[in-house]
Amino acid sequence: MAMHERQRRKICVLLVDRANYGRLKPVLRAIQDHESLALQVLVAGTMPLERFGRAMDIVQKDGFPIDGQVLMELEGSVPISMAKSVGFGVIEFSNEFQRLDPDVVLLIGDRYEALAATVAAAFLNKCIAHVQGGEVSGSIDESTRHAISKFAHYHFPSTRRAADYLVRMGEHPQTILAIGCPSGDIALEMRRSSPPVDFLHSVGSGAHIDLAHPFLLVVFHPTTTEFGDETRQIDELLAALEAVAKPTVLLWPNIDAGADHISKRIRVFRDRHAPSWLRLLTNLSPENFLHVLAAATCAIGNSSSFVRDASFFGTPVVLVGDRQEGRERGDHVIPVAANRAAIVAGIRAQLARGHYPPSTLYGDGHAAQRIADALATLEPYVQKRLGYVGDGGGGR
Amino acid sequence: MAMHERQRRKICVLLVDRANYGRLKPVLRAIQDHESLALQVLVAGTMPLERFGRAMDIVQKDGFPIDGQVLMELEGSVPISMAKSVGFGVIEFSNEFQRLDPDVVLLIGDRYEALAATVAAAFLNKCIAHVQGGEVSGSIDESTRHAISKFAHYHFPSTRRAADYLVRMGEHPQTILAIGCPSGDIALEMRRSSPPVDFLHSVGSGAHIDLAHPFLLVVFHPTTTEFGDETRQIDELLAALEAVAKPTVLLWPNIDAGADHISKRIRVFRDRHAPSWLRLLTNLSPENFLHVLAAATCAIGNSSSFVRDASFFGTPVVLVGDRQEGRERGDHVIPVAANRAAIVAGIRAQLARGHYPPSTLYGDGHAAQRIADALATLEPYVQKRLGYVGDGGGGR
Amino acid sequence: MAMHERQRRKICVLLVDRANYGRLKPVLRAIQDHESLALQVLVAGTMPLERFGRAMDIVQKDGFPIDGQVLMELEGSVPISMAKSVGFGVIEFSNEFQRLDPDVVLLIGDRYEALAATVAAAFLNKCIAHVQGGEVSGSIDESTRHAISKFAHYHFPSTRRAADYLVRMGEHPQTILAIGCPSGDIALEMRRSSPPVDFLHSVGSGAHIDLAHPFLLVVFHPTTTEFGDETRQIDELLAALEAVAKPTVLLWPNIDAGADHISKRIRVFRDRHAPSWLRLLTNLSPENFLHVLAAATCAIGNSSSFVRDASFFGTPVVLVGDRQEGRERGDHVIPVAANRAAIVAGIRAQLARGHYPPSTLYGDGHAAQRIADALATLEPYVQKRLGYVGDGGGGR
Amino acid sequence: MAMHERQRRKICVLLVDRANYGRLKPVLRAIQDHESLALQVLVAGTMPLERFGRAMDIVQKDGFPIDGQVLMELEGSVPISMAKSVGFGVIEFSNEFQRLDPDVVLLIGDRYEALAATVAAAFLNKCIAHVQGGEVSGSIDESTRHAISKFAHYHFPSTRRAADYLVRMGEHPQTILAIGCPSGDIALEMRRSSPPVDFLHSVGSGAHIDLAHPFLLVVFHPTTTEFGDETRQIDELLAALEAVAKPTVLLWPNIDAGADHISKRIRVFRDRHAPSWLRLLTNLSPENFLHVLAAATCAIGNSSSFVRDASFFGTPVVLVGDRQEGRERGDHVIPVAANRAAIVAGIRAQLARGHYPPSTLYGDGHAAQRIADALATLEPYVQKRLGYVGDGGGGR
Repeated sequence: MAMHERQRRKICVLLVDRANYGRLKPVLRAIQDHESLALQVLVAGTMPLERFGRAMDIVQKDGFPIDGQVLMELEGSVPISMAKSVGFGVIEFSNEFQRLDPDVVLLIGDRYEALAATVAAAFLNKCIAHVQGGEVSGSIDESTRHAISKFAHYHFPSTRRAADYLVRMGEHPQTILAIGCPSGDIALEMRRSSPPVDFLHSVGSGAHIDLAHPFLLVVFHPTTTEFGDETRQIDELLAALEAVAKPTVLLWPNIDAGADHISKRIRVFRDRHAPSWLRLLTNLSPENFLHVLAAATCAIGNSSSFVRDASFFGTPVVLVGDRQEGRERGDHVIPVAANRAAIVAGIRAQLARGHYPPSTLYGDGHAAQRIADALATLEPYVQKRLGYVGDGGGGR
Repeated sequence: MAMHERQRRKICVLLVDRANYGRLKPVLRAIQDHESLALQVLVAGTMPLERFGRAMDIVQKDGFPIDGQVLMELEGSVPISMAKSVGFGVIEFSNEFQRLDPDVVLLIGDRYEALAATVAAAFLNKCIAHVQGGEVSGSIDESTRHAISKFAHYHFPSTRRAADYLVRMGEHPQTILAIGCPSGDIALEMRRSSPPVDFLHSVGSGAHIDLAHPFLLVVFHPTTTEFGDETRQIDELLAALEAVAKPTVLLWPNIDAGADHISKRIRVFRDRHAPSWLRLLTNLSPENFLHVLAAATCAIGNSSSFVRDASFFGTPVVLVGDRQEGRERGDHVIPVAANRAAIVAGIRAQLARGHYPPSTLYGDGHAAQRIADALATLEPYVQKRLGYVGDGGGGR
Repeated sequence: MAMHERQRRKICVLLVDRANYGRLKPVLRAIQDHESLALQVLVAGTMPLERFGRAMDIVQKDGFPIDGQVLMELEGSVPISMAKSVGFGVIEFSNEFQRLDPDVVLLIGDRYEALAATVAAAFLNKCIAHVQGGEVSGSIDESTRHAISKFAHYHFPSTRRAADYLVRMGEHPQTILAIGCPSGDIALEMRRSSPPVDFLHSVGSGAHIDLAHPFLLVVFHPTTTEFGDETRQIDELLAALEAVAKPTVLLWPNIDAGADHISKRIRVFRDRHAPSWLRLLTNLSPENFLHVLAAATCAIGNSSSFVRDASFFGTPVVLVGDRQEGRERGDHVIPVAANRAAIVAGIRAQLARGHYPPSTLYGDGHAAQRIADALATLEPYVQKRLGYVGDGGGGR
Repeated sequence: MAMHERQRRKICVLLVDRANYGRLKPVLRAIQDHESLALQVLVAGTMPLERFGRAMDIVQKDGFPIDGQVLMELEGSVPISMAKSVGFGVIEFSNEFQRLDPDVVLLIGDRYEALAATVAAAFLNKCIAHVQGGEVSGSIDESTRHAISKFAHYHFPSTRRAADYLVRMGEHPQTILAIGCPSGDIALEMRRSSPPVDFLHSVGSGAHIDLAHPFLLVVFHPTTTEFGDETRQIDELLAALEAVAKPTVLLWPNIDAGADHISKRIRVFRDRHAPSWLRLLTNLSPENFLHVLAAATCAIGNSSSFVRDASFFGTPVVLVGDRQEGRERGDHVIPVAANRAAIVAGIRAQLARGHYPPSTLYGDGHAAQRIADALATLEPYVQKRLGYVGDGGGGR
């Protein structure tokens, strides 16, 4: 490590799944390129897991060395295994943050892995910066996100409403340093470039899907606060897809409680019906995922990406169930109940409608540089204090 | 378990230290006496630990059977051992909440053990009720308290300001069900009763202290966000006490990061100076602690009890350092820096001033019954959602 | 719990995978039927896991209530995740043994889950009885098995050689209470009954396999002490199977470090070659597994079942690699290196040879009752002491 | 790290308490001085704990940099907290061994912390060398020690009997590389040097003890397999000491289950009786401990050091209870039951008898160099196999 290297501010960026990386990749690049910042990459969650496609390999191939990896996922796919994974994560992240000793921990979103990292960092007196605070959704993600905000020292929310909400929650306005989701940066870049070579035939299994022809994209995760209902929900969705029977790319679910039930129903459906229109994928690089999302005739399911990232491309979305309830969204989204008739009707409406105009609700394409600059200039601190005190509300 | 027993609503109350029990004892009694509630008592933190006086034995002697105990404290007394204790606690509380299967988890305050229980309960889709949310302080307790609020489904804040802050933070007003700290119930009861028999000679070690004569009460915990400075702070405090040299009851610190440093300095001070004015105590029953607090000529240190409970009695307090910074407080408190001259000056000023009139800032003495009634009538639910959505703030 | 129930000796039987249950089922039955024993069933490892087929459901359907379940498997399938799963298991088993408070813990074999349970039980001063001690193999199982023996208070080895080895290792001869593997009990029973209805079409995916016609059975687990080589090994095996191209039933591997690499290669092989001769299975009931093993024309791989259980039926076995190196075996086994030419040659030799005569090397079919009777009459104790002391070896 | 440094064989030495360090210090020095070895020091157990005197500070002051520290002790001092500490240790040691990536892990003795490290190292396919295998004792240490031996790849036993026992247990004779306890090296060195300056007045609290005048040395740890009886045992011992009432140095107990009960009784005894003859110590450097042991008129208690290290000096020992039952011992030891009359009688007999001649039963003073040389020349390997196979015992 050269002399000047030691004087750079160490930013430890946490990546816990492909979606995290998809959003933070421009930020990683901007940090790496910043003369006063030193990048530390910490992977956790499904990133290092073979059976989820080891997305950490993509990170390394993209030129970001991995400084630490945390295995924290307890098998089980039930609420108690998810709860214990949080606990296990706190323990393991404590080790990594102590070892890496960053000046700032940067994390994104509302997953339980991010909560575990937040708690570990906070109790180690580390300064925490959080991307995507202040939003609203369903699932345990809702409470998790706001709890992370209450530990975070600086905030990079994605929308003006989210920034406003953070201030109302008692975060000091001067700790909100940039607005806009960095995934918009990739989307903007992509809209300028030509479409990619067709690659879907080389990943996953099942039907051949041609990106140049109409196809559906499906991602469906469990809503953990409705644990036990996910089997019914995925069955309704699969029945709807079978009724529509268009070429379909389906990604396996994430690792939340209930995911193994969803996977099992998908496997059973595949083995029983051998659908000629279905391709199953484990993982895609961030760019390829966005390419598929941009190219899809319609996206169906409950991924937050369908609310956020699809808005950059105007991809029509059928948003199934309550997982994204309350999240700010554009006109491209038709929300429906997790009910086969409603889903079919939603898909047919969107197919009839076609693509929407792009939106900048979630970012203008320049968030990453703003975030990196803020990381270079912010003042790390430890002791938070609720923003209301001293505002005439009665504190002294 | 008789038939009607099974239909009672199960309230699992968490106790993690003597102070928790001191505040919740009236609530335990009110739940136990309520015809539609069934009490489950879960002890954790220092409650089951021999070297902290096993306060759980007092709970049992008081007639509250223990339904579960969680050993979660990792030795070390440094930030990383505290962080890992949180993680370990999440794992262990998950087991206990799954096994006890309560309808509502009731917890109090802002300790890391309460955070661990909150995370476990939330990820198990349990309904959480929280006492003492909405307050402000220093140390990691500040962020911890608000994070707990963001997971809690119902709130029993201690003051009107705290209730107001919770609503501003996005908690729905209809989830704030009672106001007032239940420790005020014991205090009110005590003010009506005659003083207790002198008992201090039978606990702890060191000088004989007579409750009927003037004495100082000292409690000093680490401020975890200032980890590393606690040795200096306790040395300043001990030097101040030595300068004053009045009969003094000193309680050993809690288990937060830095506590072993404080204990070590106290031990060294005792071994070197053999002070004739000092008595050291490990633990007291809730009533006895309040008796000592009420009888003290002056209380010195940074326990939240000196801000809250001392207000019921008007005991003069010298509040040392930043651990309680921002907490709502009455006139009985003189805040000073952790500096021997300032502490000595504070003590002398309070000794000159004498007792203050009692205050109801933290409760009117009837909180426990209100809390029990609320627990019996509230509607348990799982999915939270930030209170701003739909209030014209732009959500849809 | 009736009065007499409380006086029964509580035997807590640990089951960590389908194979465990396959061997201990007759013991569970004999304990359940024994008038002075009360059965406690504790499941762990892959037994409660959806993605491994939740074999605990079979246990319950068979009439054995589950008294506790332990989620202990950390995702990763690498040595460090396996190591941490042991640690996590020790923590979780401690809770369960404390709660269930058995008089004797009964466990089998050499898996890391059994080691975790052994350590937990030993440090809780529980009396431990161990089935299948004294054997020899490769993989970490070898050391694990002997370490379990050094904590176990009573032993039920499967063979005379194993019993002899235990005594040589310093176990007191009077603690070796029964000889014979209880899986032989089921095998004996099965040899007397008529063959089962064909059931393979209803489980798993891939080619239709008819139990009444010649077919191969393949099970291949990682050898953890050769971690990193398992990808090469499974590729060699798959190439050999492709060269032979006979109807084949292949079971997915266990959960040891390296298993995800093996699974991945199998998935890739299936997706690329779409072999018309291959059926993939996740799980089978104990009886159905033994039926398939008995009916197979040849069994290929490295399951200990191919050495032990296949001997009861005389099923020809091609034993691949070093995982079972040193284990006592009958004439039905041809050991080969993990090399495609050697495997093909082995299979061809066994196909030419046909079935072998049954053997009683691993049991005479009456082990379960002997074990249950021993459990009822043994004297539980805590403090072990190496058997050599006082035998003239110099101890005093 | 210079070029040649990278080619040195990395030996990771584990230290879990003062006694470990006391024995391994000459080995650390010999490894550090060896041209083909690179020393890694990993501290765990009580070594990093403030309330046990942070013996790791002594290690560093002695010139051995600390490469890693593991906080693994769960508070509680009961069997389940000890059991969970093992589990927690396995998890934490896994991280450290993965990070430090040693060629050989060197550990000593029979403590649960060493077991945790052994399991972690074994499942990570690390080569393990073990000092002090093959001995016999009481407490859980007995089973723990032999289980460690079954995972260890190389052995450095302390006595010929221990070496013989290891071979009988199935360890290959060629893996037993050196005989003799390295604590003998320090003892030999000390016997040659002049006595140290009196230092006891500067550590601990209580009576002044003069090393030049007759005094007793007392160390009493819990016997975990007799958990619950330790309160009675220490009360008997304290009553015996009071009856004798000679100047006495008493060290606080270790961290095993039951230790907090022992500490509590000692504290109560001190507070009630204020004995003028008693000095209490937390910790001593290895040399100072041996100086005190060598100078003591009689050593009383159940430390293994009284059997092993006292033999080098001929210090008379009254060995109380069963904790060392079965351990090879010299004539200097009088074993007695944990009974005040028996203890008093033992002390009086030893006081009448005086010092014994030194013994080389546990080492000739040159063990450390032999161990370092063996570490430099041994062949690391992973896969163990029981030594009986192929010896005509029936294996094939």
